Amino acid sequence: MKKTLIALAVLSNVAYADEGMWMPQQLPQVAKQLKAAGLKLDPASLTQLTQFPMGAIVSLGGCSASFVSPQGLVATNHHCVYDSVTHNSTPSNDLLANGFLARQMSDELPATPGSRIYVTKDVTNVSKLVINAETAKLNGKKRIDAIEKNEKALVAECEKDAGHRCNVASYYGGLEFYLIKQLEIRDVRLVHAPAAGVGKFGGDTDNWMWPRHTGDYGFYRAYVSKDGKSADFSKDNIPYVPKHFLKLAKDGLKEGDFAMVLGYPGRTNRHRLPSEVAYTFDWSYPAFVKASGESLAIIAKETQDNPDTKLKYASRVARISNYYKNRQGMLDSYADSDFLARKTKEHAELKTWVNATPARSKEYAADIAQIEALIAQRDAQNKRDFFLASSSPAMLSTARNLYRLAKETEKADAERKTGYQSRDLPRIKGRIDAIERSYDSKVDLALVWHSLIQYAAQPKASRDANFDNALGIQDGMSTADLKTLLDKLYANSQMGEQATRSAWMGKSAADFEASQDSFIKAAVAMYEGGLKREAEEEELDGHIQQAYANYMKAKIAFMNSKGLAVYPDANSTLRVTFGKVAGRDHGADGTNWTAFTTLKGITAKATGSGDFNAPTAQLAAIKAKDYGNYADPILKTVPVNYLATLDITGGNSGSAALNAKGEFIGLAFDGTLDSIISDWDFNKTKTRTIAVDLRYMLWEMKYVDKANQLLKELGAE
Amino acid sequence: MKKTLIALAVLSNVAYADEGMWMPQQLPQVAKQLKAAGLKLDPASLTQLTQFPMGAIVSLGGCSASFVSPQGLVATNHHCVYDSVTHNSTPSNDLLANGFLARQMSDELPATPGSRIYVTKDVTNVSKLVINAETAKLNGKKRIDAIEKNEKALVAECEKDAGHRCNVASYYGGLEFYLIKQLEIRDVRLVHAPAAGVGKFGGDTDNWMWPRHTGDYGFYRAYVSKDGKSADFSKDNIPYVPKHFLKLAKDGLKEGDFAMVLGYPGRTNRHRLPSEVAYTFDWSYPAFVKASGESLAIIAKETQDNPDTKLKYASRVARISNYYKNRQGMLDSYADSDFLARKTKEHAELKTWVNATPARSKEYAADIAQIEALIAQRDAQNKRDFFLASSSPAMLSTARNLYRLAKETEKADAERKTGYQSRDLPRIKGRIDAIERSYDSKVDLALVWHSLIQYAAQPKASRDANFDNALGIQDGMSTADLKTLLDKLYANSQMGEQATRSAWMGKSAADFEASQDSFIKAAVAMYEGGLKREAEEEELDGHIQQAYANYMKAKIAFMNSKGLAVYPDANSTLRVTFGKVAGRDHGADGTNWTAFTTLKGITAKATGSGDFNAPTAQLAAIKAKDYGNYADPILKTVPVNYLATLDITGGNSGSAALNAKGEFIGLAFDGTLDSIISDWDFNKTKTRTIAVDLRYMLWEMKYVDKANQLLKELGAE
Repeated sequence: MKKTLIALAVLSNVAYADEGMWMPQQLPQVAKQLKAAGLKLDPASLTQLTQFPMGAIVSLGGCSASFVSPQGLVATNHHCVYDSVTHNSTPSNDLLANGFLARQMSDELPATPGSRIYVTKDVTNVSKLVINAETAKLNGKKRIDAIEKNEKALVAECEKDAGHRCNVASYYGGLEFYLIKQLEIRDVRLVHAPAAGVGKFGGDTDNWMWPRHTGDYGFYRAYVSKDGKSADFSKDNIPYVPKHFLKLAKDGLKEGDFAMVLGYPGRTNRHRLPSEVAYTFDWSYPAFVKASGESLAIIAKETQDNPDTKLKYASRVARISNYYKNRQGMLDSYADSDFLARKTKEHAELKTWVNATPARSKEYAADIAQIEALIAQRDAQNKRDFFLASSSPAMLSTARNLYRLAKETEKADAERKTGYQSRDLPRIKGRIDAIERSYDSKVDLALVWHSLIQYAAQPKASRDANFDNALGIQDGMSTADLKTLLDKLYANSQMGEQATRSAWMGKSAADFEASQDSFIKAAVAMYEGGLKREAEEEELDGHIQQAYANYMKAKIAFMNSKGLAVYPDANSTLRVTFGKVAGRDHGADGTNWTAFTTLKGITAKATGSGDFNAPTAQLAAIKAKDYGNYADPILKTVPVNYLATLDITGGNSGSAALNAKGEFIGLAFDGTLDSIISDWDFNKTKTRTIAVDLRYMLWEMKYVDKANQLLKELGAE
Repeated sequence: MKKTLIALAVLSNVAYADEGMWMPQQLPQVAKQLKAAGLKLDPASLTQLTQFPMGAIVSLGGCSASFVSPQGLVATNHHCVYDSVTHNSTPSNDLLANGFLARQMSDELPATPGSRIYVTKDVTNVSKLVINAETAKLNGKKRIDAIEKNEKALVAECEKDAGHRCNVASYYGGLEFYLIKQLEIRDVRLVHAPAAGVGKFGGDTDNWMWPRHTGDYGFYRAYVSKDGKSADFSKDNIPYVPKHFLKLAKDGLKEGDFAMVLGYPGRTNRHRLPSEVAYTFDWSYPAFVKASGESLAIIAKETQDNPDTKLKYASRVARISNYYKNRQGMLDSYADSDFLARKTKEHAELKTWVNATPARSKEYAADIAQIEALIAQRDAQNKRDFFLASSSPAMLSTARNLYRLAKETEKADAERKTGYQSRDLPRIKGRIDAIERSYDSKVDLALVWHSLIQYAAQPKASRDANFDNALGIQDGMSTADLKTLLDKLYANSQMGEQATRSAWMGKSAADFEASQDSFIKAAVAMYEGGLKREAEEEELDGHIQQAYANYMKAKIAFMNSKGLAVYPDANSTLRVTFGKVAGRDHGADGTNWTAFTTLKGITAKATGSGDFNAPTAQLAAIKAKDYGNYADPILKTVPVNYLATLDITGGNSGSAALNAKGEFIGLAFDGTLDSIISDWDFNKTKTRTIAVDLRYMLWEMKYVDKANQLLKELGAE
C-alpha cells in the first residue's frame, strides 16, 4: 500500500462507535474505538490490503466475498451466487430448488457469464493527478473532460499489467480520488449453494425483516491459468491460491461480542445537503414509489397469461419490488423523523463555523452558496426529466448505445468516451447478449406507453425536443395517438430480435445511418441532440464537482475541528465497519429483538411451500436435534441469523463478518426495513446488520447437505 | 358471606406467585404473597363478595364482566357483546362493522335473547349437605342420584328468592360443593361496541398471539324493574344500581406494576392424574384436532356457493377454528415438554407420602388405586364412543332432548332430571329457537356422513347397539349404503323446519310416540336404551366421584404438608389471580415480548380490509398524534394491549383487571398460544394474560367514537 493514502491525524472521537464505513487506511484514526470495542488484532494490520485479513476480502462486482481456503474457495451470499445457480438449472435439474454441491472440484460448474472475482491489490491516492494544477483552474464541461482524460490515463497505465482491472473512485463528493487496482479473476465456478428453501428462506416476505432465518450463503471457487494468471474458463485452469484466507472462528459467537464486516458497500448519502434530503424524500422517492407500483401492476397484467414472459420479467419484478419496499421503508422512517430539521441545523452550524473567520469564509463561503444553487438547478432538471428515461423504448436506448459505440470507435481508444473504450467491449457485449433473457416487446411497449402518456402531458418546455422530434411526439397527442405512434415504432424495428440486435455491435456508423429500422433511425436522429444535452449536463457537473468538493473540504475541516473523524460515503470500494453482536430494544410494536434466531424459528415458519419452503431433510434434522458441535451453549440449539451494530448497505452482501481475532463468524446479508434510512441518516439505536451465523452454515452443510469434503476444506472437520 | 367457607390455615408458601385461580375466601392464605406483589388493599377485603371490589364483579354466563358506573354500566370484552351486536345488525345498518354507540339511554338496544348478567350474592359451602352421612355410604349410580337430589333441593330452596339463579358447583374433583346464589338480571342492553376493525382487530390471525392490538371491549347496561327486581325487558325498567362499581385508575399502568384479574374462569385441569394427561395429549386432543380439521374442510366445501349457509355456520367455524388452534397449540407445547414425566413423578411422590404412614395408607391408598382403574375404564369408553356423538344428526339429538323433556315433564318438578326442570325451560326454548340460525340439513348431513363412515367401520362391539338399531346401521355397510340411509332419514323428517321443531316443545310423550317423523321415531326408539346407557355411565360416575374426591383430599393434605396452598381447578366460579405487568423473554424466535403494544402497531398492521381493517377515523386520529391524557410517559404514545403474569382461562374473557388500589386498568381477553397448555401445566416463564389497556379504551372512545356521555358516566372526563 502506498504511503500517499489519506493521513489525517488520529482523532479521539467518533460520533458513534458503530457508525462508519471506514476506508482501511483510516482505521488508525479510530484505533482507540476499535480497541475499546474489543478488537484483538492491531488496528494497523487492517490497513494492509495485501496482508491478513484484508488480503482475503474480494469483490464480485455488486457483491462482496472472501477467500476461505487456500484453494481459492470463496464464501458469499446465496443471493450473490443466485444467477449462477439459475444459469446452470434446467427444468429437469432445478439446482435452485434442490441446491447444488460439487462433491469434487471436477463437478464445479461455470458461474453465469460475466462473473468475476476482483482481488484488490492496490489503492493509491491520485487526487492530485486527477485534479492537477491545470484541471483545478477549469470549470464546467472543460473540468469534467479534463478529469475524465486524467482518469483514463491512470487506468490505461494501470491496466498494462495484464489480468487486472483498474478504476478511479471518487471520495467525499469529488474531493479525493483513488486509483484502485484489482486482479480480475474470470474463471469463476459454482461450488455449493443450499436449496432455495434454505438460501432464500423467507423470500420477499422476510426481505429487510427480523426475525430472520435465511441461510444466505453460497460458495464459488476462483480459477487461474497454470501460471497463476487471470484467464478465461479452461479445463486446464487451476484453483487460485490466495495469499490469505479467512479461518473459521473456533468459539461460538454470543451477544455483546465484537464483530466487524469487511466488504464493498455500494452507496450512501450521509454527507448530502439539506436541499438534497428534501428533494429526495419529499419528491424523488415518493415519485419513484408511485411509478414502481404502477410498473409492477403493468408487468403483472401483461405477463399474467404467459409463463415465459413472466419468467423473463421475474428478475426485474424482484428488483423493482426490492427497491419499492426499500424506498417506502425509508419514506416511512422519514415521515416519523426530524431528519431534515437536523440536517438543516447541521448545515447552518457549518456555515456559522465557516463565516466565523475571514480565512475560512474566503476559502469556503462562496462554494457553499454556489453548491446550494447548483443542486437546486440539478434537482429541477431531474424533476423535469422524471418521465423521460422510462418513456424511451428499451430498443431505442439500446440502439442509441450501439450507435454511440460505433461513433466512438471511429476515434483512437484513449480519446473515446469512458464506457466505450476497448476495455468496455466485453461488458457491452454481455449486456446486449443478456437483453434476450429479460425483454418482451409487448411488456416493454405497455410500460413505455404508461410513462409516455405522463411525459407527453407536460408542457413543451418541460419535454426534450430531441426526443419529441425523433419519435414524432407533438403537443396535445391523445393516449390513443401515443399508442399508435409506439405500435408503429415497435412494428418497424428488428431490434427486438436477438440475432439482429447482436449483429449491430461492431457495425460502422454509416451502417446505422443507412438503416430503415425505426429505433436505429431514431437513435441516429437523436445523436447530435444527445451529445448537446450531455455537454450541458457535463457543464453543470463540472461546476458541481468543484463546488461540492470544496463544500466537503469545509465539512471535514469542521468535523475535525470538533475532534471527529469523517469517513467518506460508500462508493463500492473496500470498507470496514465494526460494532458488536446485539439485539434491539424496539422491534415490531410489542416486541424486542434478540440477537440470535435459531433452528426453532425455521420449524415455526416452515409452510412447505412458497417463501417458507424449508426442505424436508432440514426439518427432519432439526427435529432429530442432532446439533453436533454447532449448538450454542446459551440458546441450546443452532443459531441461524444474528444482529450486529454494523454499518452496511447494498454491495456489502456476502461480506465476511469477523470476530475480535479476525476469524470468520458468518456473512452479512441484509439490514432492517425501519433502519435502511441509515443510508442517509444513521440511527445508532435502530440500525442493525443481519448476518447468517457460521454455525448454521456448517450445521446445514454437515447434517442436511452432507458436504463433508467442503467442510474439510474449510477446516471445520 | 357465610362463615362456613373453606378455612384452611394461612400457609406460607405458594408454588408460584403468579399461578393460582384463588377462590376469594382463600386469599388470606396468600396474604403475604399479595402484599409482596404490591397489593395496597387489605387481602381480607377481597373475600367479601358483596363489598368493594368483589361486589362489582359479575358473570355473563361464559364471560366475565364488571360494573363500572353507579347506573349499572357493565364493561366486558367486545367478543362477549359480539352476539348482541350482530343480533341488532341489518344489511343496511351493520353495527358490527361500524360499531354502535347509544348516545343516550333511550338509544340502548336489547342484547341478544337469553343474555343475562349474574351478580354473585352468596357462596355457601354445602359439602356436608350434598355428601351427607347417608349419601356418603352410597356408591355408583345411587350415589350420583343422591347427590343430584341433594343439589336440586338446595337449588330449589335458594331460588325461592325470586329473580335469583342458584347452582351447586363442585370443587376439587367433587371433594367440596358450594351453593352459589346469583341475582339474574334479564334485561340486558347494548350500550357501546367499537367497530369490528377495533374490537376484533387482528381477527383469527392474531387470536392467541402477541404482539396484539385488539380493542376487545364493549359495554352493556343492567336494567331491573322500578322496584329494583330482576325483570324481563320493559321500556319501564330502570338501570340497576349496583352496590359497588369499579373506578378508573388515575395513574397509567407500567411494566412491573401489580395487577389482578377478577372473573369467572371456566375450566382447568391442573389436578389431573398422569393417565388423564396421557389420554388427553396422546389420544383425545390429537383425535379432536384431526376431526376438527376434517369438519372445517367439509363445512367450507358444503357452504362455498351459498353465502346464507356460510353465514349460518360462521359462528361454528369460528368456534371449531378457535379450539383447533388452541388444542394444536397445547399439543405443540406438550411435544416439547416433560409434562407427563413430571406429572408421573409428582403422583408417585403422592403415593409414597400416602404409604409412609399406616393411617394415611388406610385413608387414601385404596381410593388412589381405584381412581386410576376407573379413569382407565372411562377413557377406554370415551375412545370407543369418539365417533358416536358426531354421527348423530343434529335433529336426532334435538328430537331425543325434546322427547326426554316430554317424559320428564310427566313427573313432579323436583323429581325431574337436572336440566329438564321448570327452571330449565327458558334455556331449552332458547336453544331450540336458536337452531335455525346455525343449521342447514345439507351441511349437517355431510358432517354426519363423514363421521358415520368412521363409526360404522368399527367392530360391532365398539358400536352402540341402541343407536345402530334405531338408525338401521348394520355390519359391513358401504359408504354409499350409509349415505342412502342418511338421505332417507333426513328426507322423512320435518324437524329441520323451525315451526315444526318449536311446536314439539311442550307436546306429550304420546304425541312423540305417534309420530312418523324419522328422527322423532328414532328418538323414541332410543329412549329406553339411552336411559340404560345413562344409568351405566352414572354408575361409573358415582364410583369416580367417591374415589376422585378422596384422591384430591390426599393431594391437598400432601401439598399442605409441604406448606403449599392449593386452589381448586377452575369451574366457572368467581376467582382471583394476581401478578404483575410483564413482558416475556422468549417471544417468536428472535424476539422478546415487551409488556405493552401501542397505537404504532395498529398503523403498522392495518391493511384496510380483513382481519386488520382499522377504521379510517382511527388511523387519522393516530396520525394526528392527539393523545390527550392517554399517552404513556415512557412509550410516548397510547398503550393498546399489555401482558401480565396472570392465571386465566376461557370464561375469564371480559374480566376486570385491577391495580394495587383496586382501580380498573383494563380487561383481560386472551392468553398466548404457546402457554395455553397452562390449563393443564402452568408455566410461570411463559404464561401471560393479554389485556386491553384502559387508556386505549378511553382514547378510542374520546378521539375516534366521540363517546363523550359514556366517558362522563365512567368518570373519565
